[in-house]
Amino acid sequence: MGIITLTTDFGLRDWFVGTMKGVILGIAPQAQIIDITHDIAPGDVRAGAFALAAAARFFPRGTVHVAVVDPGVGSDRSAIVVQTRDGLFVGPDNAVLSLAVAGATSVRVHRLEDKRWFLKSVSQTFHGRDVFAPVAAHLSNGVSVARIGPRTDEMQRLEFPEPSCVRNRWTGCVVYIDRFGNAITNLPADLPIFRTATWVHVRVRNSKSGIPVCSFYEAVRKGRPVAVVGSSGFLEIAVNGGNAATALRLAVGDPVVLAPRRRD
Amino acid sequence: MGIITLTTDFGLRDWFVGTMKGVILGIAPQAQIIDITHDIAPGDVRAGAFALAAAARFFPRGTVHVAVVDPGVGSDRSAIVVQTRDGLFVGPDNAVLSLAVAGATSVRVHRLEDKRWFLKSVSQTFHGRDVFAPVAAHLSNGVSVARIGPRTDEMQRLEFPEPSCVRNRWTGCVVYIDRFGNAITNLPADLPIFRTATWVHVRVRNSKSGIPVCSFYEAVRKGRPVAVVGSSGFLEIAVNGGNAATALRLAVGDPVVLAPRRRD
Amino acid sequence: MGIITLTTDFGLRDWFVGTMKGVILGIAPQAQIIDITHDIAPGDVRAGAFALAAAARFFPRGTVHVAVVDPGVGSDRSAIVVQTRDGLFVGPDNAVLSLAVAGATSVRVHRLEDKRWFLKSVSQTFHGRDVFAPVAAHLSNGVSVARIGPRTDEMQRLEFPEPSCVRNRWTGCVVYIDRFGNAITNLPADLPIFRTATWVHVRVRNSKSGIPVCSFYEAVRKGRPVAVVGSSGFLEIAVNGGNAATALRLAVGDPVVLAPRRRD
Repeated sequence: MGIITLTTDFGLRDWFVGTMKGVILGIAPQAQIIDITHDIAPGDVRAGAFALAAAARFFPRGTVHVAVVDPGVGSDRSAIVVQTRDGLFVGPDNAVLSLAVAGATSVRVHRLEDKRWFLKSVSQTFHGRDVFAPVAAHLSNGVSVARIGPRTDEMQRLEFPEPSCVRNRWTGCVVYIDRFGNAITNLPADLPIFRTATWVHVRVRNSKSGIPVCSFYEAVRKGRPVAVVGSSGFLEIAVNGGNAATALRLAVGDPVVLAPRRRD
Repeated sequence: MGIITLTTDFGLRDWFVGTMKGVILGIAPQAQIIDITHDIAPGDVRAGAFALAAAARFFPRGTVHVAVVDPGVGSDRSAIVVQTRDGLFVGPDNAVLSLAVAGATSVRVHRLEDKRWFLKSVSQTFHGRDVFAPVAAHLSNGVSVARIGPRTDEMQRLEFPEPSCVRNRWTGCVVYIDRFGNAITNLPADLPIFRTATWVHVRVRNSKSGIPVCSFYEAVRKGRPVAVVGSSGFLEIAVNGGNAATALRLAVGDPVVLAPRRRD
Repeated sequence: MGIITLTTDFGLRDWFVGTMKGVILGIAPQAQIIDITHDIAPGDVRAGAFALAAAARFFPRGTVHVAVVDPGVGSDRSAIVVQTRDGLFVGPDNAVLSLAVAGATSVRVHRLEDKRWFLKSVSQTFHGRDVFAPVAAHLSNGVSVARIGPRTDEMQRLEFPEPSCVRNRWTGCVVYIDRFGNAITNLPADLPIFRTATWVHVRVRNSKSGIPVCSFYEAVRKGRPVAVVGSSGFLEIAVNGGNAATALRLAVGDPVVLAPRRRD
């Protein structure tokens, strides 16, 4: 019983996601279909790529991951399947798959071109249903990527911004804001500063003073900002019991500076 | 392993949908339960009927579809199961099932009256849990519609508005607005005008000029309106990278006129 | 094939819920995972407890229920599994499980302390993924609560407010407002007043006159308030075709008075 995950910007208000599942079960009746999320902002390829990458590494080996954030549907953008040791990743070739496969060592990319794996009639606007769902179902049934389509050496990739360091002072940025208003940064948990400095804090544009880096949200008083190494493995800026993005007016791309601080 | 789909206006905020699934799995442990949508606007039978019809035709034969948009719950409205060659459709007899079975040739309608297929205690307000979920589970287990309840010749039906034509000028209307703000019309892909005219465009109340009919969204510049034959098989009015319903102030019922245009 | 339910405040916008499911399926590939809801307001333990209690009793015996509304994650709050005759309940020991097990006669509580049942690396902020999902999966695989962790006699409990009665006049309060704006009270269907009085009505702060208690919503005209015994087994205040919480400005905790009324 293979697992197929879905990450899209289709929302749950209409019938789009349910229809994809009908197509999958018509081809692979034993598939276990799991939603990662369908609430990616319409066309936000970067957020879709981030969500897929954050979730995919917790799925069993062999899972087929489908990501459809696809503003170019119907144009001449390619569609691909990427095979790694961990699983298969199916979607448009617009970088939405790229963060999930960024760290993989043995990556094979194949293009979805062979219509025998698609629905008979392919619309111009809903390749999630007509192309990606049936291809994922056939892959889940054991069809090899080599049969699905020709191999290619190219795929679109997002650059994940790397933090920079000058004299133990790290500059990164906000890369995602979650539903709680926590601002996830690109500053990973394994930066040397976390080992060498006992007290560290971060500064953002709208914080009057440094925000302490602590082990958990409730280490500060209710309503106070705090930075913690979050579940994604990166430093997150939160407000205990509140919404950091609103309180500190944080947005994706905002700079975040991490430095040691003197104990008061 | 039978498939049971759910289409409701219960939303996902409360425990209503999860509870229906608990009831189903208590009776049919092998059922595969798939959500079409639960975000139909409260009581909007027409939108529920449209969503179910759009999704159901992509599910395997034999699927049991449950639709509960049921403002009359607890009153004397009937409850029915409709059997077609494609599957079984369970819900209140208020036309929510009617678009999904509109094209079917061999349709049998049975009334849900026999309490042995319901939960022991039936509330006045939640027949989704107490009537429709258990009936769907028993049907999925192989109980025949004849055993579920007496046959009837009647069911409530929605009239799907038909477009009209005067001298190769088609007048239809908006029938659904999706989460992207695309306005789906009742103008189908197989109108003769699409074969006879090379260039066609549509007019709506708030568009200053005709909206070109193209093959895909990105055929026009970002922010510009475009009409495409959408995944539902009908002409849709969209804005490339934007929200047509907001930009053009479109609402369900708005007239849409489709006509040939001269090449500029 | 065991059932595992999920009740959280994680929302569906991010990858959190999907990630929990990946962890579960990695340990218990045959598990059937059912969402109760993920739209509990962030940190609203009382609403989470109410939703879980309302849904859990409709699931088959042996179901594993996971509830993660956990504002104290990473602090020193305990994590527990509660075993009753009906099923297993896994979550933080902050009372989110307490309403679901309130009526159970044989309750055993065990603490989650043994790291062998957790993910290898446990974050400070996402025990849903790192602790509760894997523990639930192991329980679903048949691991006993005794092996999961040491027994304890204590667990945090919410007090469910009890209505009071003075001379056949019952005073209760609003305990939950659902997505339709219906205000669910703590006045149960089996109060003696419902048997002894033919006509009863309720009063709330912002209702000009008494609200009639009827059998179903449509017993009053569109737009008029009505009280019905709802699907949860408690009296609910609704507006036929409308939103009672908005129309009557009702909030959780508001007093509700139920009394006989003279027939006009």
